[in-house]
Amino acid sequence: MSLEHPVIAVIGAGAIGAYYGGRLAEHGHEVHFLLRGDYDAVKARGWTIRSCDGDFTLPPQRIHVYREAREMPRADLVVVTLKSTANDQFEKLVGPVMKERTTILTLQNGLGNEEELARLFGIERVLGGMAFVCINRLAPGEVHHSDHGLIRIGSPRRGPDARLDRISAMFNASGVKCEVTEDLALGRWTKLVWNIPFNGLSAILDRTTDELLADAESERLVREIMREVVIAARGSGVELPSELIEKNIIHTRSMNRYRTSTQVDRQMGRPFEVEAIFGRPLRVARQAGIETPRLEMLYQMIRLIDPGRP
Amino acid sequence: MSLEHPVIAVIGAGAIGAYYGGRLAEHGHEVHFLLRGDYDAVKARGWTIRSCDGDFTLPPQRIHVYREAREMPRADLVVVTLKSTANDQFEKLVGPVMKERTTILTLQNGLGNEEELARLFGIERVLGGMAFVCINRLAPGEVHHSDHGLIRIGSPRRGPDARLDRISAMFNASGVKCEVTEDLALGRWTKLVWNIPFNGLSAILDRTTDELLADAESERLVREIMREVVIAARGSGVELPSELIEKNIIHTRSMNRYRTSTQVDRQMGRPFEVEAIFGRPLRVARQAGIETPRLEMLYQMIRLIDPGRP
Repeated sequence: MSLEHPVIAVIGAGAIGAYYGGRLAEHGHEVHFLLRGDYDAVKARGWTIRSCDGDFTLPPQRIHVYREAREMPRADLVVVTLKSTANDQFEKLVGPVMKERTTILTLQNGLGNEEELARLFGIERVLGGMAFVCINRLAPGEVHHSDHGLIRIGSPRRGPDARLDRISAMFNASGVKCEVTEDLALGRWTKLVWNIPFNGLSAILDRTTDELLADAESERLVREIMREVVIAARGSGVELPSELIEKNIIHTRSMNRYRTSTQVDRQMGRPFEVEAIFGRPLRVARQAGIETPRLEMLYQMIRLIDPGRP
Repeated sequence: MSLEHPVIAVIGAGAIGAYYGGRLAEHGHEVHFLLRGDYDAVKARGWTIRSCDGDFTLPPQRIHVYREAREMPRADLVVVTLKSTANDQFEKLVGPVMKERTTILTLQNGLGNEEELARLFGIERVLGGMAFVCINRLAPGEVHHSDHGLIRIGSPRRGPDARLDRISAMFNASGVKCEVTEDLALGRWTKLVWNIPFNGLSAILDRTTDELLADAESERLVREIMREVVIAARGSGVELPSELIEKNIIHTRSMNRYRTSTQVDRQMGRPFEVEAIFGRPLRVARQAGIETPRLEMLYQMIRLIDPGRP
């Protein structure tokens, strides 16, 4: 990855890609965005980003947006913020911006994304990260970052990696808190402990995070599902800290009323990230012989109402 | 209960009450119906009942309908087909038609109905039954009986009871198959093995019974919930036959596309029978120390989206 003036490609600039890529662009980095649905709106009017860390706009003359990956320049750093339901298009969407020493950083949800990228582009080129952020797209070209924002990045090969420090420094210098973890799997599962109950229940019941915690029985359910995810993680050799559940509840209570991405998907009739968030973690548990009845039930229910169901 | 010409009161004539009471009226019995929402329509136009066992109509001049229980004659037999969410109104809705030797037969769903009636009117006056029937109200005064129809009745005090045989004979002579069971609790739990998964999942996911069985993972979930209900029943000392689950699946596959009453409630924004169908069976399991995570999760989810939630 070129250090001084990296060319950065953001593949799949939804709310997450627009925000994090936008912060880098705001701070002078050369960022190229691949968009689909919002292309026309953003090409015409740029992005307007309302953020708890400071609003900003990216006027159209200051940004590079594309409808096709093959029109983009090759990049030093590729930030993948596609929905995991588009992972079968990695070759077409990521392939064209790759060069010999390109680094890919996937900030996608759930399990399996690094593995799928590694299969196509080689594991040595792939890094992963979790965005702990409350963010929604309000309208084409309009993003609302309502809370949090930390990115935690790591290598699927574990251990230290100089690229992680450079990327982290770049984000931190651009107004995005970014930490390096030496245990990406721990980070992935840590995020799943939140995502599985909240994304799952919010989508199935069409309720926001605060509504899920306003009732004693459903709060109990959230905690029970979290406990099962903690147990499922052991199937990947990941031991999560016991205080994580309590922290998550407190954290979520401190957030404003939040619609998870899967609840938004439900309301918009868009495909759910069924496999990355629910299916793969469940299979880890099943293969390790770990019983997780609530996680299983969540998966069985959510795939039935997935708008992207074939 | 007067034998020759019993005066029959149907309290809460929704689809179930209209159908079973209607069959008795069709066969010459004196039946008085208490209605709420559909009173005006039925008073004006009577009932039109499409039934897999033969369509029939009850023209307004042939039926007795009431808006208030206190306007009804006292009855020899009271058939209670109220939604269990109205059980707190038993005194007002059932009390006025009672006389010294009235028998009450509740055909309501779930657990706890006999007990609540017994508390007010004495257990010696209460019988219970399960209607195994696919029936929906299509419009005010229009009922569609699409499949099955058996009623199984018993006494909460167990053992034989001459009233059961008389009521059974009356139904059988009126085109309704009716069996007597000496174990009402077994019957209640047998029906719950169907109701808990199908009413629960159909309401939460807004899917019909055939849709729930069309997918391998959700069929598996249905079976797993059934297994938990079989286990929960042991908390009431009820041992259900092991082939019941397979029979239920085959039975349900043989039905046409069916919207359970709770799915209809969801679509109409009406209160769910949360406690009778889910809450009380779950508490039986909890009190017996029996783990039923899926039943618990179903309860925790369904009460959150119950349109009747206070």
